[in-house]
Amino acid sequence: MYKIGIDIGGMSIKAGIVANGEIIQREVKETNQSGGLDNIIDDITELVNKLLAKCELDINNIDSIGIGFPGVVTNEGRVTCVNIGLENASIIPKLQERLKGTIVRAGNDANVAALAEYVYGSMKGYNSGVMITLGTGIGGGIVIDGKLITGSNGIGAEIGHTMVATNYYDCNCGNNGCFETFCSATAIIKYAQKLLQEGRNTIIRDMCKNTLENITAKMVFDAYKENDQVAVEIINRFKKYLAMGIGNIVNFIDPAVISVGGGVSNASDIILDGLSEEVKKHLPLKQTKIGDIVIAKFKNDAGIIGASAL
Amino acid sequence: MYKIGIDIGGMSIKAGIVANGEIIQREVKETNQSGGLDNIIDDITELVNKLLAKCELDINNIDSIGIGFPGVVTNEGRVTCVNIGLENASIIPKLQERLKGTIVRAGNDANVAALAEYVYGSMKGYNSGVMITLGTGIGGGIVIDGKLITGSNGIGAEIGHTMVATNYYDCNCGNNGCFETFCSATAIIKYAQKLLQEGRNTIIRDMCKNTLENITAKMVFDAYKENDQVAVEIINRFKKYLAMGIGNIVNFIDPAVISVGGGVSNASDIILDGLSEEVKKHLPLKQTKIGDIVIAKFKNDAGIIGASAL
Repeated sequence: MYKIGIDIGGMSIKAGIVANGEIIQREVKETNQSGGLDNIIDDITELVNKLLAKCELDINNIDSIGIGFPGVVTNEGRVTCVNIGLENASIIPKLQERLKGTIVRAGNDANVAALAEYVYGSMKGYNSGVMITLGTGIGGGIVIDGKLITGSNGIGAEIGHTMVATNYYDCNCGNNGCFETFCSATAIIKYAQKLLQEGRNTIIRDMCKNTLENITAKMVFDAYKENDQVAVEIINRFKKYLAMGIGNIVNFIDPAVISVGGGVSNASDIILDGLSEEVKKHLPLKQTKIGDIVIAKFKNDAGIIGASAL
Repeated sequence: MYKIGIDIGGMSIKAGIVANGEIIQREVKETNQSGGLDNIIDDITELVNKLLAKCELDINNIDSIGIGFPGVVTNEGRVTCVNIGLENASIIPKLQERLKGTIVRAGNDANVAALAEYVYGSMKGYNSGVMITLGTGIGGGIVIDGKLITGSNGIGAEIGHTMVATNYYDCNCGNNGCFETFCSATAIIKYAQKLLQEGRNTIIRDMCKNTLENITAKMVFDAYKENDQVAVEIINRFKKYLAMGIGNIVNFIDPAVISVGGGVSNASDIILDGLSEEVKKHLPLKQTKIGDIVIAKFKNDAGIIGASAL
């Protein structure tokens, strides 16, 4: 039996037919920037129909359709997603009607990525796992005994907005100290921009052609590999707070595995080097064992694969 | 059928026979300060036998015995508890042998208190709940769908050592920023001592007879009720960080209820006043509903009742 996974992003909607955790057919569409429930439903229906046509399948061959949204999804499937104009929107009944009664499920995009890793990827075989996606922000997903912990109101797991320390700039959410202001790609870029603005001498300046807006997290990791001292300072700071954020996860629910994903996780060697030892410093009993820390398996496909597993 | 709950503390071991969540008979014994596995086993056996004699019961009338330890208890029941000289101690088989095969279970004391609140107290009837005990330190316990989340290595839920912000003093655990350095009774006392040391004018000075070591959290709350401006400053600081710590819990697993216990929770009106609104400021989507925040039902009895429910 086939499943369909749909990954709603701010820029594009990606869809795929999934069999045994592998995407066997893909479709993609630009996100309708005017947003709204009807547009989203039209777009999803169009993508599903295109996928079916490509594979010469009928909707009756599809077991279920899962959708990952970049926002809050309640346990009743109501979606709030500011970017695409959804507020407490009841999307499932309307979609099911359009898709001839096929089962439709919805989830938060970071939760869905965690599910992909738990069912098919880096967290497979563990009893419990937490995934953090280090991208523009930080997303989180918690799975315990095979069940996504989405929370009583669909908030869980906004790990990017858990607070770890006082920071030199405020988060978009209005608070100071959110984990994502230390360890997202954005956080790395901002700190690099700050040091360059202070006139520090670094090869990042050449890499970005002395235009601060051009700086990427990859540039900083590349400069780190060249032993550039400003890059070393930025990455050491990032790693210090990453250990604190993961330490919070361990002190909170002590999962059997923690998977680090998102664009920043491409620098896997640098991230994992010494990380477990640093995390253990945050335990009250330092000699206690902690779960494994691993790098996520799926990159851009986590959304489709995870949504299909909802 | 009766159960026995045992609450191991640094100063005393409290035991009780529990029927339907009520303690029907109690015993208490000073904790043997020389510690060690054999002493603990002797003490527990003695308490159990005294309880049985008082109630004219036989050990066969006891369904199970639960023990709460102030330390890490692995899922296999191994106990590490520095204060009483236990390190990865296998206490259950030896105790079961001494207690004629009666089922013995062990848990962390804060987890056990959470279980008491979930099964019989302030979190009863909710799908998921997190308890925080604000005492000398901060303990935590998480229950989801009736199951204690103790973690894969027994660390969960050391919520007192999750980090929330940068603080002016370090935690005993060696880190800076642990939740318990902001919101425990100790944290309130330390901050009061700091302000008095700075020469601030406050009625707390009279209350403690100008001896900083005499200051208690209760004095600070009492002074707050008198509108003492230094006490207001201390309690406002405490409440700010309490909202951050609870905000972290909500952003992490979004429980249906959060129960605040421990000695500090006696000041329930002051603690709950405006708390939910402050916590919501820490959500990325401010309009999202959050779980109820309540005050724990059981005070000193949570340990016995919760242990009996293990």
